[in-house]
Amino acid sequence: MTENAESSEKEVEARPSPARAPIPPDTILIGSKPIMAYATAIMMHFSGGKKILTIKARGRAISTAVDVVEVVRRRFFEGKMKVIDIAIGTQAIGEGGDVRNVSTIEIKVEKTE
Amino acid sequence: MTENAESSEKEVEARPSPARAPIPPDTILIGSKPIMAYATAIMMHFSGGKKILTIKARGRAISTAVDVVEVVRRRFFEGKMKVIDIAIGTQAIGEGGDVRNVSTIEIKVEKTE
Repeated sequence: MTENAESSEKEVEARPSPARAPIPPDTILIGSKPIMAYATAIMMHFSGGKKILTIKARGRAISTAVDVVEVVRRRFFEGKMKVIDIAIGTQAIGEGGDVRNVSTIEIKVEKTE
Repeated sequence: MTENAESSEKEVEARPSPARAPIPPDTILIGSKPIMAYATAIMMHFSGGKKILTIKARGRAISTAVDVVEVVRRRFFEGKMKVIDIAIGTQAIGEGGDVRNVSTIEIKVEKTE
């Protein structure tokens, strides 16, 4: 069985790197896949009965994260999912002399019914 | 006197279009200029004594907006500016048969001292 087959739907971005911490539960990390890949992951998360999900992104993927949340909220859940918190921040990535700062966003959403 | 010469520092993005409403006061609209252009506009806004500012962006510029806020907050204000609200949404742009949805973000910041 490959690593991919074992991974849950929450691990949409399956490119682990030494600098990246393990993805916490109830979290989807937005990368460079098509919006619908992440939208599907969100749908599957909530279809399992969970109520809370945090969508995280950094750098250029921040715009995609907002797109994903908006598409899911408007097209798939039609008001039954709401944004309950949005936080932005900065994360240092890289090692040694190649450290740079990248902006981050965390969008916490709740399925309301 | 041209229209540009009359515009305040808040109108950093000076490309009016029929679909775009007038930029409200205490608002900076993030477009495709370098981050430091917007950072300077924010500094000037607060140096005039104002305490509240809303940074708006849509589409790909959403990532830039987060970068701008983070750079200003960390590098220039060092804790003296805080994010008090973040909202995301969707806006229909275009006319007739060429309407498409674009994601938006509004980041409200406050200078605290």
